[in-house]
Amino acid sequence: MKITEPTLLLDKGKCIANIDCMMAKAKKANVVFRPHFKTHQSHEIGKWFYEKGVRKITVSSLKMAEYFALDVWRDITVAFPTNILEIKRINELASKIQLNLAVESIEVMTYLASALVNKTGIFLKIDIGYHRTGIDPTNLTLLDKLLDTIKKHPLLDFKGFLGHAGHSYKAKGHQDIEKVHQESMEVIKSVKNHYIKEYPNLVISIGDTPTCSLMDDFGVADEIRPGNVVFYDLAQWRIGSCNLNQIAVALLCPVVAKHYERNEVVLYGGGVHFSKDRSLTPKGEEFYGFPVPLKVNGWGNPDFDVYMGSLSQEHGIIYANKGYLDSVKIGDLVAVLPIHSCMTANLMKSYHTFDGAVISRL
Amino acid sequence: MKITEPTLLLDKGKCIANIDCMMAKAKKANVVFRPHFKTHQSHEIGKWFYEKGVRKITVSSLKMAEYFALDVWRDITVAFPTNILEIKRINELASKIQLNLAVESIEVMTYLASALVNKTGIFLKIDIGYHRTGIDPTNLTLLDKLLDTIKKHPLLDFKGFLGHAGHSYKAKGHQDIEKVHQESMEVIKSVKNHYIKEYPNLVISIGDTPTCSLMDDFGVADEIRPGNVVFYDLAQWRIGSCNLNQIAVALLCPVVAKHYERNEVVLYGGGVHFSKDRSLTPKGEEFYGFPVPLKVNGWGNPDFDVYMGSLSQEHGIIYANKGYLDSVKIGDLVAVLPIHSCMTANLMKSYHTFDGAVISRL
Repeated sequence: MKITEPTLLLDKGKCIANIDCMMAKAKKANVVFRPHFKTHQSHEIGKWFYEKGVRKITVSSLKMAEYFALDVWRDITVAFPTNILEIKRINELASKIQLNLAVESIEVMTYLASALVNKTGIFLKIDIGYHRTGIDPTNLTLLDKLLDTIKKHPLLDFKGFLGHAGHSYKAKGHQDIEKVHQESMEVIKSVKNHYIKEYPNLVISIGDTPTCSLMDDFGVADEIRPGNVVFYDLAQWRIGSCNLNQIAVALLCPVVAKHYERNEVVLYGGGVHFSKDRSLTPKGEEFYGFPVPLKVNGWGNPDFDVYMGSLSQEHGIIYANKGYLDSVKIGDLVAVLPIHSCMTANLMKSYHTFDGAVISRL
Repeated sequence: MKITEPTLLLDKGKCIANIDCMMAKAKKANVVFRPHFKTHQSHEIGKWFYEKGVRKITVSSLKMAEYFALDVWRDITVAFPTNILEIKRINELASKIQLNLAVESIEVMTYLASALVNKTGIFLKIDIGYHRTGIDPTNLTLLDKLLDTIKKHPLLDFKGFLGHAGHSYKAKGHQDIEKVHQESMEVIKSVKNHYIKEYPNLVISIGDTPTCSLMDDFGVADEIRPGNVVFYDLAQWRIGSCNLNQIAVALLCPVVAKHYERNEVVLYGGGVHFSKDRSLTPKGEEFYGFPVPLKVNGWGNPDFDVYMGSLSQEHGIIYANKGYLDSVKIGDLVAVLPIHSCMTANLMKSYHTFDGAVISRL
């Protein structure tokens, strides 16, 4: 197939290697790998996990849970505060699969107690330091009250405590990520220790991509839920949670103009393809992606002095130098590593592999 | 229809008023209104322009041109550097409608001269100060060379000069926008003056949303191409090119959690719905949108102290106060004005009007 428009390339080999790597780590650490599927949102890519033995997954919306329930998945956790407006779909889905919801308030627990019609797994969402969502772990009054409600309603099936150390995404390097990991593990450990006697089967579910990528010991955790590991991206590379060779997606963009007077190359590929997520180059310049040399079955490494420095709706502007401008011509396709693969994949809606397959997604 | 997920609301009355306002201005200024349809990308909304008398439109990709050519539109300018990889589709489309392309290099002009099979309108793209794309207006050697190529090839149908003062989006208020307008008009005027004798019918096409919104005199221009005017957004409001009452879209988001301990409300509505475009509140805080009180047939004005201060893939976090937290409950739907309506609409893919219609888009 001839590519003429911005197209998302997927290096299947790198993707499988990323899955293998996390599978091996989970096995060694004796935790269940319950990958977050919000990054790829694809039946086909999901199957690559299934083939490796994964049986439990995580998503961040009911829509995604429904999509994956249409495929092989029978144990799905929606790691997002339960949206009670979707109760009808929750009830439908919970009649078909083991559906687990995240709850963090009395209002939602009370509502579910009265509205569920099928047994549904309930994780209590704990704020383990990110402060985006979740229950204050020291608020035992609230935790006890929630557990009391659960006890009284047989359809509320307590599964355990769920945390997300999302502040690891703002970490600067290995030490910082380790600190986030240690601190968040301490928090969830205190909660586990408090409740384990009464609930000996409770599950501790944690795991963002940076800590899962760099740490080997998950302490009291029973399962880990990294998502971005499947593709990685420049944001993960920037904070040290992957190396450049692990990034499994690149956006192929036609070159539409060259401007020697300001050393810029204009690509057809903008915010509606990449998203507007930014990061900083090693020299500290704000950027939206690195062009990489395209090879027959993959791509090479970036030159950090050549970067996508500006992005509008359909345009991407590469800030380059004369050498780079000489090396590309109008009508070429340039591969660009994205800053945030979850957002780029969400916009692009399909993946093109080097063996010519086109993989669809939600 | 019961809304349970993030949903893009469109206030049709405001949208029509925005179209009317720009139509009236163009008429008064004696310029053709060739609206940019990249913002709405919808047949239905396009018809609202058609009903007001608009017959020529602008788009930013061939895909959009093809989409609108399926409807009533027979004169479409693709205001984006021509992507020569799409030559087959260019030729097909130019056999059906008056297709106008933007060209800024010898490479592309030479390619088109050899590859076009139908007469196609050619605008020479001039850099009128934005420095994103376009020909340096003082580079008469290049302009002459491009026009020479056009003269020799009857399928290259010279239409005129096209400019985009996109740096107006970075302006701070009326005076700044006026300055951008005056300077960019001077540039395009010099080009017009140089070539008008030889090409008495050449068209000068300009017009970004900020300058078209605030200026009344378009000097030597023959047509204006604003796009975002159809919906406006908080980015336009922030730089002074619209008022809050002109913003015609808002994203309806379910409330999924409330955190009194940090005065935050968690919405189901994140970067995959809003996009990650940001701006600054009047007090200088980085923000991603303003919640507004929902009314029966529209919405009210924001309280600038309550804003969406953080955004992840599916979560939007409203930074609020106790009063605001008391006023909303879990399961409510909160309307949020977006920062950049083009990007939000691109992600949401449909519009819900207050009379219950669902309007589709590309």
